[in-house]
Amino acid sequence: MFISLEGGEGAGKSTLLAGLRDHLVGRGIDLVQTREPGGTPLGEALRAILLDPAMRGMSAESELLMMFASRAQLVRECIAPALVAGRWVLCDRFADASYAYQGGGRGQPVERIAGLEAWACAGIAPDLTLLLDLPVADGRARAAGRGEADRIESEADAFFERVRATYRARAVAEPNRFRVLDASGTPEQVLAAAIAAVTPLLERDR
Amino acid sequence: MFISLEGGEGAGKSTLLAGLRDHLVGRGIDLVQTREPGGTPLGEALRAILLDPAMRGMSAESELLMMFASRAQLVRECIAPALVAGRWVLCDRFADASYAYQGGGRGQPVERIAGLEAWACAGIAPDLTLLLDLPVADGRARAAGRGEADRIESEADAFFERVRATYRARAVAEPNRFRVLDASGTPEQVLAAAIAAVTPLLERDR
Repeated sequence: MFISLEGGEGAGKSTLLAGLRDHLVGRGIDLVQTREPGGTPLGEALRAILLDPAMRGMSAESELLMMFASRAQLVRECIAPALVAGRWVLCDRFADASYAYQGGGRGQPVERIAGLEAWACAGIAPDLTLLLDLPVADGRARAAGRGEADRIESEADAFFERVRATYRARAVAEPNRFRVLDASGTPEQVLAAAIAAVTPLLERDR
Repeated sequence: MFISLEGGEGAGKSTLLAGLRDHLVGRGIDLVQTREPGGTPLGEALRAILLDPAMRGMSAESELLMMFASRAQLVRECIAPALVAGRWVLCDRFADASYAYQGGGRGQPVERIAGLEAWACAGIAPDLTLLLDLPVADGRARAAGRGEADRIESEADAFFERVRATYRARAVAEPNRFRVLDASGTPEQVLAAAIAAVTPLLERDR
């Protein structure tokens, strides 16, 4: 089973990932946790460039291509081998993030992103995508205490509004794959909702 | 005018670039010289990863995407602004290199590369491409004295035979854009042939 976790700034992804990992491991699941961009030596090198505030002149096209370069490597080096070995994969962001950030946020055409996904991801897609949804202002208020913003976190509110709208539209379009979690709840409430969402996968995996 | 220079290992690209630059500047051309991958802060950061021998697990898909990420940035940050300002651009490799190395060399489908070129290059293509052609064994013998090979230079002869064959086929398919230079000649002979090839552009530019 391949589970991806998506959401905007300050939505509580890291906290939920830790809780969900502990829950799944406690249920006996052999789990690989990874992230995007990153998750491989190549991907982490690309991540450092992608988030570097000094790279603010990066074109939207280059950003999109680098995100898929990291993803293509993650699929081939980490996700596909894990799935073939019968392990589960829990990934902090996957291709939906490119539709939301490079598509909705930066205006790259959806056909362009879909064209890249078709070959870069080698047919790998999440069985379940958890979307942590939160009003932009609330997420930014939460994220504000974290120290210096990276290149993408430094975008304006309107950028993150487009990101959120794209995520929500994708969840509506693929209701079987997406579960939208209200990220305004307490960490315990969000984790409980995530556990409820993954429980059917545990049944199917038996 | 946009001139690209292509060729395999040890074909004498660097020597020819220096000679050709001096010739064009001496003819009063306002010239921007750049290279791929690289030529911008982003591109040079990608180049360091692409050529790093430690990155030998890089997937062919990731390599292709990173080459176009560097190229998309170079087009937008350097080449297009220079051409708009009436300057000439002399570039060490351009999109033909992806057809040769990632296509011929690594087996990435030509349609995939053409699909990326169609949007990543924003319609920018060389007016003239000089292909330094040399038998693979001769080029590798010349390059052998240069110290440690980078990740791509470390490929086997068969890889470079496919690279060369792809370059030659592209030159045959686009005879108006390509000039094939016999790189087995002396540096002076190769430079003379290159100058003969650029002279019509100087006439057109007048």
